[in-house]
Amino acid sequence: MKRVAIIMGSDSDLPVVKSCADKLSELGIGYEMHIMSAHRTPSAVSEFASAAYENGFGVIIAAAGKAAHLGGFIAAHTTLPVIGVPLKSSALDGLDALLATVQMPSGIPVATVAIDGAANAAILAAEILAVSDCELYEKLQNMRRDMAAAVRKKDAALNPAPEK
Amino acid sequence: MKRVAIIMGSDSDLPVVKSCADKLSELGIGYEMHIMSAHRTPSAVSEFASAAYENGFGVIIAAAGKAAHLGGFIAAHTTLPVIGVPLKSSALDGLDALLATVQMPSGIPVATVAIDGAANAAILAAEILAVSDCELYEKLQNMRRDMAAAVRKKDAALNPAPEK
Amino acid sequence: MKRVAIIMGSDSDLPVVKSCADKLSELGIGYEMHIMSAHRTPSAVSEFASAAYENGFGVIIAAAGKAAHLGGFIAAHTTLPVIGVPLKSSALDGLDALLATVQMPSGIPVATVAIDGAANAAILAAEILAVSDCELYEKLQNMRRDMAAAVRKKDAALNPAPEK
Amino acid sequence: MKRVAIIMGSDSDLPVVKSCADKLSELGIGYEMHIMSAHRTPSAVSEFASAAYENGFGVIIAAAGKAAHLGGFIAAHTTLPVIGVPLKSSALDGLDALLATVQMPSGIPVATVAIDGAANAAILAAEILAVSDCELYEKLQNMRRDMAAAVRKKDAALNPAPEK
Amino acid sequence: MKRVAIIMGSDSDLPVVKSCADKLSELGIGYEMHIMSAHRTPSAVSEFASAAYENGFGVIIAAAGKAAHLGGFIAAHTTLPVIGVPLKSSALDGLDALLATVQMPSGIPVATVAIDGAANAAILAAEILAVSDCELYEKLQNMRRDMAAAVRKKDAALNPAPEK
Amino acid sequence: MKRVAIIMGSDSDLPVVKSCADKLSELGIGYEMHIMSAHRTPSAVSEFASAAYENGFGVIIAAAGKAAHLGGFIAAHTTLPVIGVPLKSSALDGLDALLATVQMPSGIPVATVAIDGAANAAILAAEILAVSDCELYEKLQNMRRDMAAAVRKKDAALNPAPEK
Amino acid sequence: MKRVAIIMGSDSDLPVVKSCADKLSELGIGYEMHIMSAHRTPSAVSEFASAAYENGFGVIIAAAGKAAHLGGFIAAHTTLPVIGVPLKSSALDGLDALLATVQMPSGIPVATVAIDGAANAAILAAEILAVSDCELYEKLQNMRRDMAAAVRKKDAALNPAPEK
Amino acid sequence: MKRVAIIMGSDSDLPVVKSCADKLSELGIGYEMHIMSAHRTPSAVSEFASAAYENGFGVIIAAAGKAAHLGGFIAAHTTLPVIGVPLKSSALDGLDALLATVQMPSGIPVATVAIDGAANAAILAAEILAVSDCELYEKLQNMRRDMAAAVRKKDAALNPAPEK
Repeated sequence: MKRVAIIMGSDSDLPVVKSCADKLSELGIGYEMHIMSAHRTPSAVSEFASAAYENGFGVIIAAAGKAAHLGGFIAAHTTLPVIGVPLKSSALDGLDALLATVQMPSGIPVATVAIDGAANAAILAAEILAVSDCELYEKLQNMRRDMAAAVRKKDAALNPAPEK
Repeated sequence: MKRVAIIMGSDSDLPVVKSCADKLSELGIGYEMHIMSAHRTPSAVSEFASAAYENGFGVIIAAAGKAAHLGGFIAAHTTLPVIGVPLKSSALDGLDALLATVQMPSGIPVATVAIDGAANAAILAAEILAVSDCELYEKLQNMRRDMAAAVRKKDAALNPAPEK
Repeated sequence: MKRVAIIMGSDSDLPVVKSCADKLSELGIGYEMHIMSAHRTPSAVSEFASAAYENGFGVIIAAAGKAAHLGGFIAAHTTLPVIGVPLKSSALDGLDALLATVQMPSGIPVATVAIDGAANAAILAAEILAVSDCELYEKLQNMRRDMAAAVRKKDAALNPAPEK
Repeated sequence: MKRVAIIMGSDSDLPVVKSCADKLSELGIGYEMHIMSAHRTPSAVSEFASAAYENGFGVIIAAAGKAAHLGGFIAAHTTLPVIGVPLKSSALDGLDALLATVQMPSGIPVATVAIDGAANAAILAAEILAVSDCELYEKLQNMRRDMAAAVRKKDAALNPAPEK
Repeated sequence: MKRVAIIMGSDSDLPVVKSCADKLSELGIGYEMHIMSAHRTPSAVSEFASAAYENGFGVIIAAAGKAAHLGGFIAAHTTLPVIGVPLKSSALDGLDALLATVQMPSGIPVATVAIDGAANAAILAAEILAVSDCELYEKLQNMRRDMAAAVRKKDAALNPAPEK
Repeated sequence: MKRVAIIMGSDSDLPVVKSCADKLSELGIGYEMHIMSAHRTPSAVSEFASAAYENGFGVIIAAAGKAAHLGGFIAAHTTLPVIGVPLKSSALDGLDALLATVQMPSGIPVATVAIDGAANAAILAAEILAVSDCELYEKLQNMRRDMAAAVRKKDAALNPAPEK
Repeated sequence: MKRVAIIMGSDSDLPVVKSCADKLSELGIGYEMHIMSAHRTPSAVSEFASAAYENGFGVIIAAAGKAAHLGGFIAAHTTLPVIGVPLKSSALDGLDALLATVQMPSGIPVATVAIDGAANAAILAAEILAVSDCELYEKLQNMRRDMAAAVRKKDAALNPAPEK
Repeated sequence: MKRVAIIMGSDSDLPVVKSCADKLSELGIGYEMHIMSAHRTPSAVSEFASAAYENGFGVIIAAAGKAAHLGGFIAAHTTLPVIGVPLKSSALDGLDALLATVQMPSGIPVATVAIDGAANAAILAAEILAVSDCELYEKLQNMRRDMAAAVRKKDAALNPAPEK
C-alpha cells in the first residue's frame, strides 16, 4: 500500500498534527512525518513533493497556519492528491489559514479539511487510498460503524429506559 | 476505472458545475451527473451515496450553496472520498457555503475546494483515481506541463525579446 | 400537550444544551433529549425526524457546532418546526455553525436562535406550542413579567432613591 | 385558523417580502401586511405587537435590513413566535441584518431565517400554525412531496435514460 | 448644565460601563445610570427616552451586547444625541453588537464608539455638551494636554537622554 | 448658531456626501464643505481642525473610505465632536472604513454612523447643536413626525381599508 | 539604479497591475514585468526570485488573487524586499488574497499593500529604492507636493470664494 | 548606515514591539524607539516623521492596534518607506488594525506585515536597507540559511534515521 506523507510547517504544529499520525497508525497506514517550511526550506519541500510519487507516497497531508502556503506549494510540485489542514494560530482564529489553503486557483486543487482537522485529514487520506484497497475500505466501514455505535451508546446513557 | 459522481443541489448550479463535467471528460474519466437535494430529496441522496461504492463510483463531488449540507450529508452515507464545492449565492459571497462544507466534525471529512472551484474538484477527483492508475497519472502530469507551457507562453508574449 | 425533542450532535454539547432542558422543565413542557449525529448516525436522525410528528412531538430543537448540519438534516425529514441552536466551538467563534444553520435554501427553513442560545430555543419552542395552548401562553406572559421585574429590581438597586 | 402578520421596515423591502405573502396565500393562510418601522414609528410597532395575540394573530414575521431591530422590537412586546427575515442592503451583504436579528439576548428569541429568506419565513409560520392544524400539516407534507418531485424531475431531465 | 444618562441592558455590563461613569465624574458632568433592557423592559426604555429632554438630559449613552438594539431603540424615542457602546460578549468578539448599533437606517442615527469603548462614550458626551459650555470645553482641552503629556513622559522614560 | 464642517477625503466621495449637505440645508444649519485628505494634505486637515472651534464650528463631519483615518485625524486636533462616515469603496464593502473609523483608542472618540450614512451624520450633527438650541430641537421633532407620517402613509397605501 | 520586477500570477491580472508599471515609468524606474504562477510554473518563479539580486533587481512586486501565495513564494527565495498586492477576484472581495499575502510567518515578511493597490506598490518600491537615491527621493517629494496641490485645487473648486 | 525608527502608539504595545528591536540589534542595525500617538500626540508624530529623512532614518516602523492610524499618519508626512505592524487588541483579533493599516488610499502606501508581526517588520526594514548595503545583504542571507538549518534540524530530530 502506498504511504502517506505528513508535512507540517513548524514543530509547534506537532500537538495538533499528532492526531493525524495516530489515526493513520490506527488504520494501519504507513506514513512519514516531516517538518518542512514552504518559506524557510522551500527547496526541501519542492524536492520532497516532486519525488513523492516515485518514493511510494499516495497522498500528502500539509498542515500550516497563518498565510498557510504549504499545501498549495506542495500541490504545485506534484499531481498526487494533497490534503491541507489549516491551523489556528494566535490571531484570526484560523480564518487566514483556511482561506490561504482552500482558495487555490484553477488547475491546482488542495483538498481542504476543517481548521485544526488533522484527524480528518488522516481519514480522508485513508478514503483516498481505499479507492483501490478493499481491505482498507472495510476498515473505514468498520470505523464508521464504531463511531455510530459510540454515539448510540451515549444516547442510550442519556436515556436509560429506551423511549422509542 | 471507477467513475465519478457529480451531485448538485439545484439545477441553477449547473452553469458553474458544468466546468467540472467538462474537465472530467477532458481527462477521459467516466461520470454521472445528478440533481439531488440534501433538503428536498434526502432519501435520494442517502440511497445514492450508500450504494455508490457498489455502483462503481470512486469519488463523489458535491456542489451546493448557502448552508451547503450536501457534501457532509453524502459523506455521512459513504466512506468514499467526497469532494465539496462551495457555491457563491446571492449573499455573503460564498463564505456561508465554504464554512458549511469544510468545517466537518471529527470522523467525517469533506475534501473542500475553492468557492465555485468546480473544475478543481474534477482535477482533485482525477488525482485521487490516479493514485492507482498510472495512465491517468500521466494525463495529469501532461495537463500540468500544458498549464505551465501556457503560462510561459503568456509571459513570453508580454516580453517578446527574451530578457533572461 | 405535544412534547419537544432536543437533539444534540455530541455529548460534549451537553453543558450548553442543558439550559434548554431546564427552561422547558421550568415551563412544564415535556421533552425528550437525544444525542444523534447528522454525520455519524444519519439514519437514527432521519428515523427520529420522520416519525416525530406521529410520536407526539410538536417542535424539534437541534443543537450543533462547526458545519452544523443537524437542524437542516432534521428539517429535511419533517415539516414540524425545527429550531437550530448554533454552538460555538474551538474556532471561528460559532460563525460557522450560525451560517450553516441559518442559511437554509428555499423550502426548508430552520428557525435559528443566537449562538449558544439554548435557553432561547426552549422559549421559542414554548411560544410555538402556546399558539394553541392558552395556559402555556399565560406562563410565558408571566415569565416575561418576571424578567421585567428582575430588570427593574436591578435598576432600583443601582438607584436606591427613586429618581423619576 | 390564526392569521400571520408580515411587518417590514420600509416599502423598499416589498419586492423581497412579497414572496412571503405569496407563499402564505398558496398555503391558504390569512395574513395582514404592514409597513412599520422600529425606529420611525416605534409606537405603531409596539401597539401592533402588544395587541397581536388578542387580534387573532398566531405568528409575526418581521423583515428588516441593516441594524435590523424590527424582529427583536416586536418580540419585546409579545410572546407570540416572531420570525425574523434579515434583508441584504447596500453594504455588508446582509451580515449586519443577520447578526442584529439572530443574536438576541436570553429571554427574547427571534426565529431567524436566511438572508432574504422571505418565502422560508412563510413556510416556517405555516409549520408553526400546523402544530395544531392537521389540515395545514397535510398541505405542508404535500408541498414537500411536490418539491421533491420537482427535483427528481429535473434530475431525470438531466439523465434522460434512467441510469440506476 | 444638562445631564447625561447612561443606560445599560444588563447588570452584567456594569464592569465595562463603570469607566463611563468614572470619566463623567472626572469631568464634573452630572449623570444618571440605569439598567433597562430594550427587550425585557421596553416600556421603561421608551418612557425614559421620551421624557429625557424634558428631564434635563442632554445626551443618552446606551451600552449593550449581542443584537444590541438599545441605542437604536432609545434613538427611536428622542431626538437627543444617542451614543451607542457596543459590548463584546461570549461570541463573535463584539462584531454583532457593533453592526447592530452602527448600521442604523436613514433618519435615526446612533453615534457609535469602539467596542467596549465606554470611557470614550463619556468623552464624546462631554464634547457634545461642551459645544455650548466654554468651561467644559476648557476641561476637555486640558484633558487632552494631560493625555499628550502622559505619552510624552512615557516616551521620555523609554529614551532617557533626549535624542532630538 | 455654530456651523458644521463637512470634510471628505476625495472628490469622488461627493455623490454620497452630498446628502449630508442637503440635509443640513433642509434643517437650516450653516455648513462649509471641504475636500481635504488625511494622507495627501495632512497639514490642511490639522490646521482646519485646530482652528475649527475658533472659527465658529460646532461639529465636524468626516467622510472617508478604505483605511479611513480622516475622522480620527481630525479628532486628534480638536475636542469638538467629530462624526465619522465610513464610505464603501471597491473592496470589502465598507468594513475596512467602518473599523478604521469606529475603533478609536481611549481618549479620542469619533462618533461613527452607518456605512455611507452621510444623511444620518447631518441629523446627528443637528441633534448635537440642538442640545443648546430649542428651535433646532423643534425642527428635529417635526422631522421625526414627518418621517413617522410618511411611514404610516405608506402602510395605509398598502392597506387601503383600515384593518384594525 | 536597481530595477523593479513585477510578477503577476495570471494574465487576467494585467488590467489592475498595469497601473503599477505606469507609475514606475512615471517615476523613471526601470522594471521588468512577468507572468509567472506560484502554482503552475513554480520553478520559473523560484529561479527568477533566486537570481533577482544578481540580475540587478532591487525590489520584487508580486500581484495575485485568491489563495495568493505568489508574494510569499518569492520571498522564500530571496532576501530582496518583496511587495505583495492582493487582488480582488470573484469571491470574498479580496479578503482571501489579503490574508494569504500579509499573514506571513516569522522570518519571511511580505510588504503588503491594499487590495488591488498596484499603483501604491510602485510608489512603495520607489520609496525603497530612494533610501539610497537622492534624485528619486526628490521625485517622490515632488509627487507628494503635486498630489497635495491637486487636492487643494479640488477643494478650491468646491469653495470658489476662499472662506478662510 | 541609515537608522530605523520604531514608533508605537502606547507603552502597552512594548511587549510585542520588543521583538522588533531585538531583531534589529541582532542584525546590527541602529534604531531609535519611541512612544508617540497619532491621536494623543499628533504633532510629535508629524514632526518626527517630517524630519526623519534629515535625521538619518531610512525606514520607519509603526506599530498600533484598533483603528491603527499610526502608519498612515507617519506615511502622510514622509516619503521614507513606512512599515505598519497591526497589533491585536481586546476585540476583533487584530482585523481592525490590519484593515486600518493596509487599506491605504492611492498615493500613500504603508508596507504592512502580519498581525503582531513585529520581528518581521525588523527583517523587512533590514531587507530595505540592504538594497544598498552588501554587508547587510549577506547577514540576511546568513539568517535565512540559519533559519533553514534550524528547520532541517528539527525535521531530523523527528526522523532520527535519515529517510531520503
